[in-house]
Amino acid sequence: LPKTSNRFMVFMYAILKFAKEDVRRVTFSLKVGLASLLASLLILVQAPYQVFGATIIWSILTVAIMFEYTVGATFQKGFNRALGSLFAGVLAISVAELALMGDPVARPIIIGISIFVIGTVTSFMKLWPAFVPYEYGFRVVLFTYCLIIISGFRMGNPIRTSIERFYSILIGGFVTVTVNTLIFPIWAGEQLHNELVKNFHSVADSLEECVKKYLADDPSNLPVFFKTLVDEFPDEPAYKKFQSTLNSSAILESLALSAKWEPPHGRFQQVFYPWNEYVKVGTVLRYCAYEVMGLHGVLHSQIQAPYNLRCLFKTEILEATSKAGELIRCLSKDICDMKQTQKCSLMKNVHCSTERLQRAIEMRLFNKDDAEDEMNHQSQRQS
Amino acid sequence: LPKTSNRFMVFMYAILKFAKEDVRRVTFSLKVGLASLLASLLILVQAPYQVFGATIIWSILTVAIMFEYTVGATFQKGFNRALGSLFAGVLAISVAELALMGDPVARPIIIGISIFVIGTVTSFMKLWPAFVPYEYGFRVVLFTYCLIIISGFRMGNPIRTSIERFYSILIGGFVTVTVNTLIFPIWAGEQLHNELVKNFHSVADSLEECVKKYLADDPSNLPVFFKTLVDEFPDEPAYKKFQSTLNSSAILESLALSAKWEPPHGRFQQVFYPWNEYVKVGTVLRYCAYEVMGLHGVLHSQIQAPYNLRCLFKTEILEATSKAGELIRCLSKDICDMKQTQKCSLMKNVHCSTERLQRAIEMRLFNKDDAEDEMNHQSQRQS
Repeated sequence: LPKTSNRFMVFMYAILKFAKEDVRRVTFSLKVGLASLLASLLILVQAPYQVFGATIIWSILTVAIMFEYTVGATFQKGFNRALGSLFAGVLAISVAELALMGDPVARPIIIGISIFVIGTVTSFMKLWPAFVPYEYGFRVVLFTYCLIIISGFRMGNPIRTSIERFYSILIGGFVTVTVNTLIFPIWAGEQLHNELVKNFHSVADSLEECVKKYLADDPSNLPVFFKTLVDEFPDEPAYKKFQSTLNSSAILESLALSAKWEPPHGRFQQVFYPWNEYVKVGTVLRYCAYEVMGLHGVLHSQIQAPYNLRCLFKTEILEATSKAGELIRCLSKDICDMKQTQKCSLMKNVHCSTERLQRAIEMRLFNKDDAEDEMNHQSQRQS
Repeated sequence: LPKTSNRFMVFMYAILKFAKEDVRRVTFSLKVGLASLLASLLILVQAPYQVFGATIIWSILTVAIMFEYTVGATFQKGFNRALGSLFAGVLAISVAELALMGDPVARPIIIGISIFVIGTVTSFMKLWPAFVPYEYGFRVVLFTYCLIIISGFRMGNPIRTSIERFYSILIGGFVTVTVNTLIFPIWAGEQLHNELVKNFHSVADSLEECVKKYLADDPSNLPVFFKTLVDEFPDEPAYKKFQSTLNSSAILESLALSAKWEPPHGRFQQVFYPWNEYVKVGTVLRYCAYEVMGLHGVLHSQIQAPYNLRCLFKTEILEATSKAGELIRCLSKDICDMKQTQKCSLMKNVHCSTERLQRAIEMRLFNKDDAEDEMNHQSQRQS
């Protein structure tokens, strides 16, 4: 980036950098613009306006509300909106017909009570844990219901209002889905896949960084926790990236939820692709990440083992770390390539090297004879 | 709960239990019902309908979209909606006036291009990290802009459309805020406070549970990780609750974001209450939680230290744990009561007991003389 003191130029460069970092950001924005334009053409051009009339304006709202970053999230929101509107429409028409049978004085009372009941029931239902992902759907039910039943009450034709509204939503939804899916689609499944692979790498990197620092530094030089801010260890680049792995639970879950709505695409050609397995693997990986955080805590705690004590087990520690790092990287490559290679030997290496470290510590802690007794005892039990 | 095989009754009991667990769920639902009813009265009753006309229906939409669980979230969404609408309105009127000056053929082209530009720019901006919390505001700008400029184009009066829309939103917003704030308000700040206190307790409980199991069980009886699912350790009740602490980052952040919008209330009478400090304390506490997860990993790993080795340092481990637990609980009580008591002695206790454990291990690992040398060396450096 060229250096400039002009604040506007600095700002523009920052935006340019943000766009270059991930070109999909620009693609996504242009796609939203295009979809809004297409939906608005339905009114701007004379011919469709004469066919559909002014209610087609709802299709623009649908585009603005439904258009999400990934294909899966768009489908999910579209489903919520379509099903919510359909359900609310049927319900509103039924209640409106019922109210029309009553005498004119009772009519607004019935409608008012029904609105109160629908508002209460939908709000209660969306708090139910299993329904939380469909929160938006319940909102749609509430406002569509109110809209249709009140238009029906004032304009006397709830069926027409709801049909017009429904096809506006369908047209808006169609435009959104077409633009989002056919022009440079951004798949939640692909993102989920890459996110998990990235997390594997960051765990391996952080593990190696932590151990390297543990063995390299004199403990008195390391900043202790209460002296620096929790997130700031400027000399630990891998640890910085690692932060996002620790809080990856919400991201992985929402991507998996979106990915379930996506049709087979790219490398994911199976119809019911097991996206949930990504979340599970992510959870197990996060448990490894917590262990690495344990090491990181040791590195920066106030009470430190003396340097020569650390070096006592240097060979074993380094071996166990490098084997573990190798295994994690290899698993990450497998997931990335979607292949399964034989990992038995690597797994065995990790196990053996960790066991060696454990035994080395035990040998030192017990008298030598005690330790050998203990090892014999253990190997008897394991066999 | 009475036992019954009737599936409907089982279902109803489950709902009843869900409502009883947290009565605010019911309060919230009834409040939404009430707000929708109040907004719909504006149309159902003849007098206001004659004043405002049919556009007042937008106020019901506003209620349905703006009504959130906590007061803060409602304010935040209302702000997004109001500011977004205002901005979009001003912009739409300007562009519409500009377009009206051009000749009739150019008019739809200008409007179409402007919609494309607004769609692209708002979508790009909402991806910018600092603007992510205002994502909804950008959506509002897009659809309000389209709505006003297109109504203006077809009905010839963009100013009237935007003013009508704006006061409908104001009325809807007023109803929402009044009902949400005055009737059994649910404060995000209060929730944030309780959530943090709960997290403190769960860290202390889990720490004690882990250590208790570590010293009590014969390692060969403990389930190892690869044999059980990650989340299932049925005999560890504290650990189960503890899960939510590990992933509390998103919850605390969103509650703090909402709490900033709330006026002074209850125990939080300061005007700019430092809600962000809760997030920071939560982050530091999560770092303690990661250490506990490290212990939990040790508890269930395949390679175990023999039982008699664990018991070697039993006294020191138990002392360090109980001191740490005491400190965490005491801090939690302080936060809960919003008081600061003198913690120096407790902190010192934790430090001393941990140091004793560390030294005990070192004494065993080195020859006795080495260890004493080392301790002298360390104490010299510390003083």
